Amino acid sequence: MSVQEQGRRAKAAAGVLATATRAAKDAALRTMADALVRRTPEILAANEADVEAGRAAGLTPALLDRLALNDYRLEGMASGLHQVAGLPDPVGEVIRGSTLPNGLELRQVRVPLGVLGIVYEARPNVTADAAGLCLKAGNAVLLRGSSSAAHSNAAIVAVLRDALQTAGLPEDAVQLVDASSRETVKQLMRARGLVDVLIPRGGASLIRSVVEESTVPVIETGVGNCHVYVDAAADLDMALEILLNAKTSRPSVCNAAESLLVHRAIAEPFLARALPALRDAGVTVHGDVDVVEAGHRRGVDVFEATDDDFGAEYLSLDLSAAVVGSLDEAVAHIARFGSGHTEAIVTGSLDAAREFTARVDAAAVMVNASTRFTDGEEFGFGAEIGISTQKLHARGPMGLPELTSTKYVVTGTGQVR
Amino acid sequence: MSVQEQGRRAKAAAGVLATATRAAKDAALRTMADALVRRTPEILAANEADVEAGRAAGLTPALLDRLALNDYRLEGMASGLHQVAGLPDPVGEVIRGSTLPNGLELRQVRVPLGVLGIVYEARPNVTADAAGLCLKAGNAVLLRGSSSAAHSNAAIVAVLRDALQTAGLPEDAVQLVDASSRETVKQLMRARGLVDVLIPRGGASLIRSVVEESTVPVIETGVGNCHVYVDAAADLDMALEILLNAKTSRPSVCNAAESLLVHRAIAEPFLARALPALRDAGVTVHGDVDVVEAGHRRGVDVFEATDDDFGAEYLSLDLSAAVVGSLDEAVAHIARFGSGHTEAIVTGSLDAAREFTARVDAAAVMVNASTRFTDGEEFGFGAEIGISTQKLHARGPMGLPELTSTKYVVTGTGQVR
Repeated sequence: MSVQEQGRRAKAAAGVLATATRAAKDAALRTMADALVRRTPEILAANEADVEAGRAAGLTPALLDRLALNDYRLEGMASGLHQVAGLPDPVGEVIRGSTLPNGLELRQVRVPLGVLGIVYEARPNVTADAAGLCLKAGNAVLLRGSSSAAHSNAAIVAVLRDALQTAGLPEDAVQLVDASSRETVKQLMRARGLVDVLIPRGGASLIRSVVEESTVPVIETGVGNCHVYVDAAADLDMALEILLNAKTSRPSVCNAAESLLVHRAIAEPFLARALPALRDAGVTVHGDVDVVEAGHRRGVDVFEATDDDFGAEYLSLDLSAAVVGSLDEAVAHIARFGSGHTEAIVTGSLDAAREFTARVDAAAVMVNASTRFTDGEEFGFGAEIGISTQKLHARGPMGLPELTSTKYVVTGTGQVR
Repeated sequence: MSVQEQGRRAKAAAGVLATATRAAKDAALRTMADALVRRTPEILAANEADVEAGRAAGLTPALLDRLALNDYRLEGMASGLHQVAGLPDPVGEVIRGSTLPNGLELRQVRVPLGVLGIVYEARPNVTADAAGLCLKAGNAVLLRGSSSAAHSNAAIVAVLRDALQTAGLPEDAVQLVDASSRETVKQLMRARGLVDVLIPRGGASLIRSVVEESTVPVIETGVGNCHVYVDAAADLDMALEILLNAKTSRPSVCNAAESLLVHRAIAEPFLARALPALRDAGVTVHGDVDVVEAGHRRGVDVFEATDDDFGAEYLSLDLSAAVVGSLDEAVAHIARFGSGHTEAIVTGSLDAAREFTARVDAAAVMVNASTRFTDGEEFGFGAEIGISTQKLHARGPMGLPELTSTKYVVTGTGQVR
């Protein structure tokens, strides 16, 4: 079926979902969760085919691990759907309301966005997660996953669609877009009037191409070149713990730290501890001249950093590092190299914290906390569909409210102007 | 100066504006307002040059009227700026906040969008209005007006920039983009990284081209194919008054009605009164076969409507009209032909009102009120920069909050994950 035709079906399904009650949507989510568990064998069989093909195609062990499903991961997907069922329904929430001087009653009400397109890579669990969040917010979704997970995604979507039908909601609320060619991504990007919003999740190049080519509105997600700035007034123990956590607890994710900035006033004592600790944690440091010299003094190898290093989202155990002369310099460095995801300051100074949070332009600014906290679950949103690094519509972790739009409902008694 | 260079200067200015206090911004707005009044003669002289050139180029009287400034209109622009100074500052508003289980304090705070690009046609008063709203929300703005208003806009922007400098804010917060070639609009559309959001205001073709070609995020504004649906349970006096007001009070604006839908059950008595009344008000009706026949019976000429008529934003004293068999049919007609701006139902039935407001997908849905109320001032927002007909970020009249983004500020005591 063409993407256009899928879009038309999705739009029709969205019309039904828009007025579905919370009870109906939650029942469908629970039915979907139960079906995933009940039909685990057929999903795992499909997944096995993807994993085999991936192994044959020479996928890295890391990618194979992301691709592989098992009982435990399917239970995780099911419990994710149960969790979404337990979240409040954003649709129908009255955001603002007043009675105008002429007696008109004005209400701004949350409504679904309509049809979402999600383009994502590898992990098949995203298929169920995204379907669940979109459904709860009253949206139909076109899922365009990776070709390497095509069998797994097809099996999961088949199960979810059956469950929707069982629960009395339109199965076209969840559709899988053919992943065998890049052309389908382009078709999604041009489906104005059928797809309301496109959310690319994945590598930087995927996101850039969607952002640049789509005529459908896009929510940009995910690229994180996150900095930890250790201020002159930092508690050095705290700074070291935050730095190590931000860099090493999960280096492959977008909220991991990629760059360290150290105030000159405490650079010597801090780097004296941080460089050996980073080395012991397996981290390769790419430093400016001051950091390279500090490495020399402590017998730790530090590579010379280029501008490319300072601009890199490594997603690995690499870290760029520079000494800055002031908070001003730190802010300027972040403005130049940051990706607007998450920036952290470690400081005991209220002035420095205030200045940094006010002036750094990012989705999230942390004071004395790890960059790793920028996450929908950590923020208490229950779930997230991604982390927006753009300023329009949604910025930071996107939960259910970010998957909605609003509508003004104005009720009168015959008012004219 | 190139648009790129203007963008760089705007970005630098936006960095200063982002932390400017409300007091500083309001003082600048008042200085700008006073300067517009004090320097009226030089602005009117520049405007006279535009009007002369427009007359020589054969602009219609309506366009010449939109272009022409006078003492009264300049005072209106100045009082608009004073009014914006009186509005609350959206920047710094805490939208959501909580203390997370681990003790982290989470705050979602409104921040400026950064640099806005506004592409607009003809009316030079937009220059001051847009500059004022952007400044109040802490944004720098690149104004790309119409070439026909080039002298007027240059004079106004010169006055506003001088006033900004007097008030101690960066003059590059307000810049005029060269309007002598279409190329500058294209440069704005490609200024990713410098321009955060582009807002096209004007005709449908301008808006469509910006929406389709821009790599900078766009907020789509303004095309309004608004319907008035007269339900079976309508009070016919009220319906007639609303229809005439919606169609004729100001036919050239986007919230004017362009189409009438009448429930078959009351079509005969309603059209018997509406068709002569519309004719007497100078309105040309383009009707479906039922409306054409009703016209015959009453001796009122009704043109046969095509799909193009039902899809048209006439912006003139023309009206398409159709008889529908049910509320369902009305909703389906609106889904097919509407532009998602404003749709109105006239009905005494609570069920019909509820059904219509829930199912019609538009920025604003009116019950027993004229479509003409969809307007920032009417909604009590104090001012508006346009009416968004897209679902992302802002929908409906856009006031100051819609010119902002948000940032999460998370404060801890050394938390790691």
